Amino acid sequence: MFEDAELGQTISKEEYARRSTELRGALLDAQYALKDSRAFPVIVLVGGVEGGGRGETVNALTSWMDPRHIEVNGTGEASDEELERPRLWRYWRMLPSAGKIGIFFGSWYTWPIVNAAMAERRPHWARLDRRVAEINRFELMLADEGALILKFWFHLSRKAQRRRIRELRADPLTRWRVTKKDEDYFARYDRFREVSERVLRDTSQAYAPWIVVEGVDRRYREIVTAERLLDGLRHRLEKPSVQPGRTATTDPSPGVATKRTILTQLDLTKEVPRKRYERDLEKWQGKFSLLTRHKRFRNHSVVVVFEGNDAAGKGGAVRRLAAAVDARFMRIIPVAAPTDEEKAHPYLWRFWRHLPRHGNIVVFDRSWYGRVLVERVEGFCSEWDWQRAYGEINDFEEEMTGHGIVVVKFWLAISKKVQLERFKEREAVAFKRFKITEEDWRNREKWDLYSDAVCDMVSHTSTRRAPWTIVEANDKYFARIKVLKTVHDALERGLER
Amino acid sequence: MFEDAELGQTISKEEYARRSTELRGALLDAQYALKDSRAFPVIVLVGGVEGGGRGETVNALTSWMDPRHIEVNGTGEASDEELERPRLWRYWRMLPSAGKIGIFFGSWYTWPIVNAAMAERRPHWARLDRRVAEINRFELMLADEGALILKFWFHLSRKAQRRRIRELRADPLTRWRVTKKDEDYFARYDRFREVSERVLRDTSQAYAPWIVVEGVDRRYREIVTAERLLDGLRHRLEKPSVQPGRTATTDPSPGVATKRTILTQLDLTKEVPRKRYERDLEKWQGKFSLLTRHKRFRNHSVVVVFEGNDAAGKGGAVRRLAAAVDARFMRIIPVAAPTDEEKAHPYLWRFWRHLPRHGNIVVFDRSWYGRVLVERVEGFCSEWDWQRAYGEINDFEEEMTGHGIVVVKFWLAISKKVQLERFKEREAVAFKRFKITEEDWRNREKWDLYSDAVCDMVSHTSTRRAPWTIVEANDKYFARIKVLKTVHDALERGLER
Repeated sequence: MFEDAELGQTISKEEYARRSTELRGALLDAQYALKDSRAFPVIVLVGGVEGGGRGETVNALTSWMDPRHIEVNGTGEASDEELERPRLWRYWRMLPSAGKIGIFFGSWYTWPIVNAAMAERRPHWARLDRRVAEINRFELMLADEGALILKFWFHLSRKAQRRRIRELRADPLTRWRVTKKDEDYFARYDRFREVSERVLRDTSQAYAPWIVVEGVDRRYREIVTAERLLDGLRHRLEKPSVQPGRTATTDPSPGVATKRTILTQLDLTKEVPRKRYERDLEKWQGKFSLLTRHKRFRNHSVVVVFEGNDAAGKGGAVRRLAAAVDARFMRIIPVAAPTDEEKAHPYLWRFWRHLPRHGNIVVFDRSWYGRVLVERVEGFCSEWDWQRAYGEINDFEEEMTGHGIVVVKFWLAISKKVQLERFKEREAVAFKRFKITEEDWRNREKWDLYSDAVCDMVSHTSTRRAPWTIVEANDKYFARIKVLKTVHDALERGLER
Repeated sequence: MFEDAELGQTISKEEYARRSTELRGALLDAQYALKDSRAFPVIVLVGGVEGGGRGETVNALTSWMDPRHIEVNGTGEASDEELERPRLWRYWRMLPSAGKIGIFFGSWYTWPIVNAAMAERRPHWARLDRRVAEINRFELMLADEGALILKFWFHLSRKAQRRRIRELRADPLTRWRVTKKDEDYFARYDRFREVSERVLRDTSQAYAPWIVVEGVDRRYREIVTAERLLDGLRHRLEKPSVQPGRTATTDPSPGVATKRTILTQLDLTKEVPRKRYERDLEKWQGKFSLLTRHKRFRNHSVVVVFEGNDAAGKGGAVRRLAAAVDARFMRIIPVAAPTDEEKAHPYLWRFWRHLPRHGNIVVFDRSWYGRVLVERVEGFCSEWDWQRAYGEINDFEEEMTGHGIVVVKFWLAISKKVQLERFKEREAVAFKRFKITEEDWRNREKWDLYSDAVCDMVSHTSTRRAPWTIVEANDKYFARIKVLKTVHDALERGLER
């Protein structure tokens, strides 16, 4: 979930000046419209890593709006008054009334995450899951009662956090801000990341989404946060919802603040020369083949998902993978339009039925991600349908990984230019012509919409146990080797568990 | 949750003959309408205690409808095929397609409940809660995908189950049906009841409700099950839902099959003579008073809820309770129409704010149950609002009891006749006249609607840790003593924890 918050996002001084001026006016207008309508309360949660700029961002927001109608709630240690009441009492006390904005600096997420991450040995996952379920019920109730809920998470990569702590410590004026606690937490960076990822994944709902903000650049994080808050306010003010617990708070597309995404950041010039390709191909196919004949594989199975731009070379990569494995133990499932029988079931049914037995590999050439890609972009399902799909898909993959299935997911990315070349080549070469249709050209026109959908998809469904691998596929050789190596490594790790 | 399935419901032979004939025709019609429309799949779960008549009821249903379009799925031990896939795979395999009815005899509930109840020592509650959360996400997804989900639970009281096992064992023809497993399970009756209650409470959703059926009388359970299934089918066929995950499958009113309810079963003639009343009052006030001065009470608190028919004597009972306690540590919260500030928050906010500190008692004279009583009956909130309130209220009370608050809830019940007498008396006596309004007379006209709402309320929100006590209140003396004694006993148990 944090990949797209480690891209090195920045905003220049000039751009910041321009956009912040616009935003301040717009936010004030929205705030007053909210206040006058008294239509709903706004609950803004601010969480994230130490040094991620939570405090500064909250200060910026309150100074940009009318602070009389914003309540900022810090939640440190509980008071004795609070300790004598049920856990949620302190938060109920702080709930903003309709027409107001309540910012929770720390929230009902703080202690579950800290307790799990700082546990002596490993986190008590079942206990954490129970808290998560309680939180989900609590937030659904708030949303059903009409609250607009936006949850911001300020993220720093390990490197960025280390740098941040060093900077603060180096300056005599800020040295006091680095506490023993910060250092203890930082020592557990990986644990915190693991726990937070899980909590965020399981509590990101269309009606109460997590918005992960890269916390390195002050200007960037302020602008992003303000824009998302403004979006959420406007969206609800303009379209009052009868069933707020079933409605997205805001369009989840990223890139409001910047055009830098996981896709634009790819180095598509990566390539492998022909000679080396042939050598590497043989090497990785051999290694992978060995793994699939390992006796431990008899208690495991593998699911590989291929998604990617049209003409990105999925078919070629799948064939190179298949060539390494005994055909009796591998199935390739090409996913096209659903059959009548499949249509008569929930959309995941057609994928569940193909899950492999132990010792088997199933490759999905396109997959359940169609729901959040083509179905979203083409409007084949409702907004609510594809938004709830992120959580449903995570549950589905959690079922798989929890059972010991190794799940590997690829997005094969090519540039728009390379796609054009390949389309033209397909049209020109007789035996390739079947590979190109009118639909491919139509999809190409929606390139940007698909890119947004891909970024959202990766952001919502790349998890520790079922991560996305983005493959730079302008060079087919490079792509194929990366695919083979990734599947090999994943299976190798899987067999060790 | 099981109180209203221990009422000794029966249906006579003649009535059964008449109603089953009607039902068979109607069910067949509904089944064919479903089949022709192919609009949605129907998922019927059948669970409950051994000997509760699950098998016979399923057989009756399938023989009444066209068995070609019903699939009955037994789920015993998993096959080796199934063991090699994720847990839910076997159920996905069995999902009925749109237009069909799938009956799950045993289901995704079976193993979580059995494992928790049969655990060597105490159940692993956190693990159970995790399963429950998974199940809720799974069923919500099915509902969002359009499935109609009805979950039947066949219940027997401990006594009835013992009798059932004895009967089966006594008859040479049925002796084989009582297995070692049945006896092991029966030996853990209380544990099973505790675990099932928790699971049912946490998984009963408006879109996937649990329907608890008393399993003693064959005719009764068949008619109830068939009527509820028919209701569900008709409801959805007539009003196709755009958001099935947010829609009740059927009107949850009980008493479709019979007019025997927890209210009709009360013995309202219970009374305490004046002399004994005065003696008992002093005794229980004294005992309760002592408890509230116990040093352990400094780490506990008490929340008492009074609901009841108009003129049932809530005020008098509250005063007798208050008289026993140091006024500094007790607050009485009369609940009338919400203030402007309260209206600007989620409906539970006005109750959360009054939760007591340790060593304190708060009495709510009417309460959050207004949502599922007056607001439901008078249409002050939407159907969806009051239906989701059961779960929200359970969560709220779970927060309280989890924190060590002793929660005691009373429904003071009087007969319609006694109410009339008291109304007339109030009108006649000058100093009582403020107690009777036009509204009271209007409510009285809706007596039956309120009775339905009360039965639903008790059925959905009476839990082990926060049970309802129904107080027979035709005799005020009897009612007051029962109230005092119940609060005393609850606090006594609470202090032992």
